[in-house]
Amino acid sequence: MKVNRDKLSMAPSTYPLLIVISGHSGVGKDAVLEKMKKAGFAFSHVLTATTRPKRPGEKDDVDYRFLSESKFRQMIKMNQFLEWAEVYGNYYGVPKREVKEALKKGLDTIIKVDVQGATTIKQILPDAVFIFIMPPSISELVKRLKQRYGLSSAELDLRLSKVQDEMKRLPIFDYIVVSHTDNLNLTVTQINAIVVAEKCRVKPRAVML
Amino acid sequence: MKVNRDKLSMAPSTYPLLIVISGHSGVGKDAVLEKMKKAGFAFSHVLTATTRPKRPGEKDDVDYRFLSESKFRQMIKMNQFLEWAEVYGNYYGVPKREVKEALKKGLDTIIKVDVQGATTIKQILPDAVFIFIMPPSISELVKRLKQRYGLSSAELDLRLSKVQDEMKRLPIFDYIVVSHTDNLNLTVTQINAIVVAEKCRVKPRAVML
Repeated sequence: MKVNRDKLSMAPSTYPLLIVISGHSGVGKDAVLEKMKKAGFAFSHVLTATTRPKRPGEKDDVDYRFLSESKFRQMIKMNQFLEWAEVYGNYYGVPKREVKEALKKGLDTIIKVDVQGATTIKQILPDAVFIFIMPPSISELVKRLKQRYGLSSAELDLRLSKVQDEMKRLPIFDYIVVSHTDNLNLTVTQINAIVVAEKCRVKPRAVML
Repeated sequence: MKVNRDKLSMAPSTYPLLIVISGHSGVGKDAVLEKMKKAGFAFSHVLTATTRPKRPGEKDDVDYRFLSESKFRQMIKMNQFLEWAEVYGNYYGVPKREVKEALKKGLDTIIKVDVQGATTIKQILPDAVFIFIMPPSISELVKRLKQRYGLSSAELDLRLSKVQDEMKRLPIFDYIVVSHTDNLNLTVTQINAIVVAEKCRVKPRAVML
């Protein structure tokens, strides 16, 4: 029996991943991303564009791409967003071109979106890796929301009602990772494990954009 | 609006995993398992039962459960194997009871089977995690087979023909991990990442046995 030994070689594929980080408002998505950068993760983070005002300490092209409303509307018209939405009176969107270019370079690419945004991206790019950042508990989330936004009880109930709606979308996600504020290393280790495991998959998730 | 805050809590599930480690004969599955144990992995390794003679250095209840052919045949009759097969004149089988008990205790459980065995287990327990250990190259696999078995060229072609057949079964596996003989730490790190990632899955793989 003659065996063609050359045809036997095979290695896991190395497509870049598109990683969608999502979760409730106030859950700490930014803190997780920042920790990942500090931990030396090799990835391209495509910034979300927004029309909302900068918060103290935020920088353009570091935290968000801060755009005027007219510029944002123009980009919507020209179909330049992977997804966009209006949330509490402000626009947010993921610029399509940057995502495309990062993936083309072969870089694992991370985008950060709210749950509605993740739902939209799931429909367009089902082969992205969807990670839901979960608060350690609801009381912890309530604490963070109060701290960040100084909400009234009625406003808080409105937010929590949204949280409840968002939880119904959990099935669109592949993974849940808890944002342990006191141990973000654990959170980042889990996200790293997800990336490593995804790269070992027999059927790689190739995102076509 | 009244929100029931108690109903919002949710955490990833913690079912134990059944991890099926498989790959071609000679690829180094045992070396990988040994390294995992040394690295302090917390898991239960259910030993394969076999009728083949011990190799130098092998120990009963450490490397395999070495059984007589009559005992093995009796266990087949009593349906006590998760799967069993005759390979090159020897019997191999995974004892069902040990797997069941380990999972019942909540332990992640690893079994090591050949590709045919993995195919059978996939049919019975599709929610197990199937990891294929891949040689770094075919020439490396040939080297290992020659070293271990001292095969003639015809025998080697027979083995490689089997390798070719086994490769057709790759789609039943979830993950491919390369056994880097010179860097088994990398192999074990990847398997660890797979276990961590699987535990973060939104839809946990619950093996019912």
